[in-house]
Amino acid sequence: MLVETVRPIILTGDRTTGPLHLGHYAGSLRNRVALQRTHRQFVLLADAQALTDNIDDPEKVRSNVLEVALDYLAVGIDPDETTICVQSALPALAELAQLYLNFVSVARLERNPTIKDEIQMRGFERDIPAGFLCYPVAQAADITAFKATVVPVGLDQAPMIEQTNEIVRRINRQVGRELLVVAKALIPSTGRLPGADGKTKMSKSQGNAISLSASPNEIRAFVNRMYTDPNHLRASDPGVVEGNVVFAYLDAFDTDHASVDELKARYRRGGLGDVTVKRRLEDVLQELLKPIRERRQAVSNDLGYVLDVLRSGTSRARAITQSTFDELRDGLGLFSLAGTR
Amino acid sequence: MLVETVRPIILTGDRTTGPLHLGHYAGSLRNRVALQRTHRQFVLLADAQALTDNIDDPEKVRSNVLEVALDYLAVGIDPDETTICVQSALPALAELAQLYLNFVSVARLERNPTIKDEIQMRGFERDIPAGFLCYPVAQAADITAFKATVVPVGLDQAPMIEQTNEIVRRINRQVGRELLVVAKALIPSTGRLPGADGKTKMSKSQGNAISLSASPNEIRAFVNRMYTDPNHLRASDPGVVEGNVVFAYLDAFDTDHASVDELKARYRRGGLGDVTVKRRLEDVLQELLKPIRERRQAVSNDLGYVLDVLRSGTSRARAITQSTFDELRDGLGLFSLAGTR
Repeated sequence: MLVETVRPIILTGDRTTGPLHLGHYAGSLRNRVALQRTHRQFVLLADAQALTDNIDDPEKVRSNVLEVALDYLAVGIDPDETTICVQSALPALAELAQLYLNFVSVARLERNPTIKDEIQMRGFERDIPAGFLCYPVAQAADITAFKATVVPVGLDQAPMIEQTNEIVRRINRQVGRELLVVAKALIPSTGRLPGADGKTKMSKSQGNAISLSASPNEIRAFVNRMYTDPNHLRASDPGVVEGNVVFAYLDAFDTDHASVDELKARYRRGGLGDVTVKRRLEDVLQELLKPIRERRQAVSNDLGYVLDVLRSGTSRARAITQSTFDELRDGLGLFSLAGTR
Repeated sequence: MLVETVRPIILTGDRTTGPLHLGHYAGSLRNRVALQRTHRQFVLLADAQALTDNIDDPEKVRSNVLEVALDYLAVGIDPDETTICVQSALPALAELAQLYLNFVSVARLERNPTIKDEIQMRGFERDIPAGFLCYPVAQAADITAFKATVVPVGLDQAPMIEQTNEIVRRINRQVGRELLVVAKALIPSTGRLPGADGKTKMSKSQGNAISLSASPNEIRAFVNRMYTDPNHLRASDPGVVEGNVVFAYLDAFDTDHASVDELKARYRRGGLGDVTVKRRLEDVLQELLKPIRERRQAVSNDLGYVLDVLRSGTSRARAITQSTFDELRDGLGLFSLAGTR
């Protein structure tokens, strides 16, 4: 118990809109596997948040709760170390979100840079679902309900943590003590992995990503279609490493950094063909993804186990989030009908 | 049980921002006492909604949950006939509201005429709390959670029922069946009771109202300061009945309509003094309020009983609202972790 209370609390998670891919692995999943040893980690299957821009396709959101859970278990997120839980099954999160909406002005929500960008990206314009505009508040509910102090986010999500902390400070001021805790964004040191075409980030919808359950042939085909240096026509030509997707992936996944640096030098000088570099990357990815694919297959044959993991994680999370809500209700002096829950 | 299912379902309630007054009695409370015999009636102590524009004063909202409950019991709302429940103690309402936010656009919320008026009235301008903008969606959650078909509202609240029914239709279309029910506004045939000054509606904040627990002296003083006809200087003068607060109250509370009509005729003709009419109104109000005041006093001496009423009503309401949420979750095909609740 002593160790538990000393470990910093991390909240992280994924919107359940599709199985995770190698970009998620590089950007977050492998960090979670490492962090679960030193942190008290909660991973949220964010199906309620996924509905804020997918209400026309609830089936996609529903079916991917289990797909993403399989990905978690496949990469080595350990349910004995990490609490994996389902957002929509935690009513205290909705209750907190509803309460927090009173502490945030509409104008403030509309100024949120992430929301502004995403509204444009999704082409919502004036038809923004209210749930979408309000999702930063729901996210504040998620983070604070677990009293997370560390929240791993991409650089573009940093304004979400700011919004959360504004709510935390406003409420703590009103309550008169540090009832909620201020969270810190943990922004990954490595940038986003590019897609195979080198132009965009890895994205399933653009055919630019490779899933964690990809077969050996799919991995090979993915590497083969990677963008390299279009002017590097013969192996003997000098080549450019910057913007070269194959090297970006070697940087991300090849653990022998010295040898990657040597390859880069040879590529720049001339005398190293794309095919050789791609075969090396393919070997690295085949080795990385084989055990993940196999574990994913094994776990997906035992959905009873997966559901047990989600049930016990969610039930643990329910107690924690409910207790935060109760504490806040009492701290703010709201009405309580003790004994009717 | 047969009778139960045949009775139409009514949802009604009050924001818990202050004890109720004679205006509430005339406009809604006495209707509820009548309707509870023919309808399955749910009355919501709307503390969560009250917070949408009172987040700086949660104590006011909290303490008035019990005050309003006392008013209900005092006027004869019978907890054996009517389910009295506390909004904030029903998590399924927050869950439904969060889900519904995805079905409503921000533009639609901003077009709501009631919200537009209230934003102006409260001087919110651009600093509207998000919870306030979204409260029509929370109200839709309340109404639909109980599957209410009848919702008594003031004329100015009719757009709220429209908003609710838009959500109901949109969701039923997506679910493919009439899972949620369309509600009808029940708009009272009598208009709003004026305040003592005759200019505004009865409002505690303007010193223009009389509480249900008013003492005999307070009732007398309230009647004495009522606005009549400023040109009716002597009893022998002809007087004007229209806009005359005393007659408005006699219309609302004196059950002997024939005799009120006769008084009006005499007042118009001349020969009836204000004092005489006021004494008659005072008698009517003293008689009306005496048993209410006495019951309120008796019940407030037994808060254990009041809490029991709220606990059992809320627990009944929790089962109903939770069941609607579960049904909707399954109807929309959302993820469900059966067995973890």
